[in-house]
Amino acid sequence: MTRVAVAQLALQVGRADENRAAATAAVVEAAATGARLVVLPELVNSGYVFSDPAEARALAEPADGRTVSEWVRLARAHDLVIVGGFCELVGGQVRNSQAMVDSGGLRAVYRKVHLWDAEQDVFVPGEDLAPVVDTMIGRVAMMVCYDLEFPEWVRSVGLRGADVLAVSTNWPVSPVPRGERSVLIAHAQVAAASNRMFVAVADRCSAERGVGWVSGSLIIGPGGYPLAGPVLQDRPTVLVADCDLSTARDKSSGPRNDVHRDRRPDLYATGETVSP
Amino acid sequence: MTRVAVAQLALQVGRADENRAAATAAVVEAAATGARLVVLPELVNSGYVFSDPAEARALAEPADGRTVSEWVRLARAHDLVIVGGFCELVGGQVRNSQAMVDSGGLRAVYRKVHLWDAEQDVFVPGEDLAPVVDTMIGRVAMMVCYDLEFPEWVRSVGLRGADVLAVSTNWPVSPVPRGERSVLIAHAQVAAASNRMFVAVADRCSAERGVGWVSGSLIIGPGGYPLAGPVLQDRPTVLVADCDLSTARDKSSGPRNDVHRDRRPDLYATGETVSP
Repeated sequence: MTRVAVAQLALQVGRADENRAAATAAVVEAAATGARLVVLPELVNSGYVFSDPAEARALAEPADGRTVSEWVRLARAHDLVIVGGFCELVGGQVRNSQAMVDSGGLRAVYRKVHLWDAEQDVFVPGEDLAPVVDTMIGRVAMMVCYDLEFPEWVRSVGLRGADVLAVSTNWPVSPVPRGERSVLIAHAQVAAASNRMFVAVADRCSAERGVGWVSGSLIIGPGGYPLAGPVLQDRPTVLVADCDLSTARDKSSGPRNDVHRDRRPDLYATGETVSP
Repeated sequence: MTRVAVAQLALQVGRADENRAAATAAVVEAAATGARLVVLPELVNSGYVFSDPAEARALAEPADGRTVSEWVRLARAHDLVIVGGFCELVGGQVRNSQAMVDSGGLRAVYRKVHLWDAEQDVFVPGEDLAPVVDTMIGRVAMMVCYDLEFPEWVRSVGLRGADVLAVSTNWPVSPVPRGERSVLIAHAQVAAASNRMFVAVADRCSAERGVGWVSGSLIIGPGGYPLAGPVLQDRPTVLVADCDLSTARDKSSGPRNDVHRDRRPDLYATGETVSP
């Protein structure tokens, strides 16, 4: 059994030191409960609601900068896998990135492929697959926010054997009918159920320059049901769930069904306009 | 505005006459409210829980048999599009099929591609794409039950321009954690939201040979939220919602985002094991 943690953080745009400190405190709290995987939100170092691209660029840092280096230190000190989002400067370009670190150091950097709204003015989209990394706790996949709304992207990490998908997000609030919860939660549930894998989502809290957040951090099992959360309260939270990650290797959805083997890729590829 | 109806029916295996009568009564009730599209469950004529393949074969009928002919009569009498599931005998094979009819007669037959559990002993799986048919109310796509759990299949009708996806289903009950609703509802929500289309699901009620049903009939808008239902009560119900189906032609999910244009098929196709 592996204890998985997601940290819902109150970040502030431009306050890199406070943001790093909030993340560190949450990681230490998670480690103290026995967590081995800790997921942090999107853009932890910078915050999200930039006035303009220049503000983001000024806050961006390389993958060996202060933020990710601090996560490496924490991973070594507490024997953790940490996955978190950061505003990256790489090759002169600003990226909406996500790092995975463990006691061995930096394991992977993923650059968000599907950019939401004004992010298109700020970031260069990624051109590489979302990583699936073999770690001490199992195979951990990476993804940022809007990426999760593309079932093809989720399937790609599922088919490459992800046991748990770590999602760093800043889900902006949008209207939700009474009695319903954000459909973003449903996206996370279906990502899990469609691929019989765990999904751990770390969301934001605390409005920033007028933008509020779903605060929907949660941990979902391979059946598609929450094991912890969704929080849905606008406050910093460390959420944990004990996950037998090995169960994600079994893709059975019933005595005679398997969510991956039952696929019909021969039919999905048919026709120019229906690929994939 | 188009009134869409889904009919949650209490069917009984082997009682074809009563089953047809129940469907007819529901269609007439829906038409009386002004519905133009009526969706019926899976395997309306036969019921679902067969003792063996021979029982299903004995109940199967061709697409010009009594069940679908009755739907054509109703479609003509009330100027409707009707989509419903039936146990089909075609070319000597038994299929889990779905018919679409309108005042012009039979428009399409779809044969379920993804077969659940013991259906594999009873039915030959389909080999053709799920149809998207241009009708008097807009483009109506077809799908049966477990098909909906394959995002690739849903995407395929979305990319071919479906305004509304008509799902005929018999969702068997499975355990749901307290405070949650069946993850099958989330699948339907995400099908809608991922493709900004309407989704209309007609489910079963009334346990059959010990198998209970989710009774989760519902109609969902392009934002992924229910417009009517889910019923989640074990009783026959005709559910209606007024849908501006033309809004499904706009795939915008935000001022600068589009759920289809934002896809990155160049990346989805990368690598042998991640197709599509």
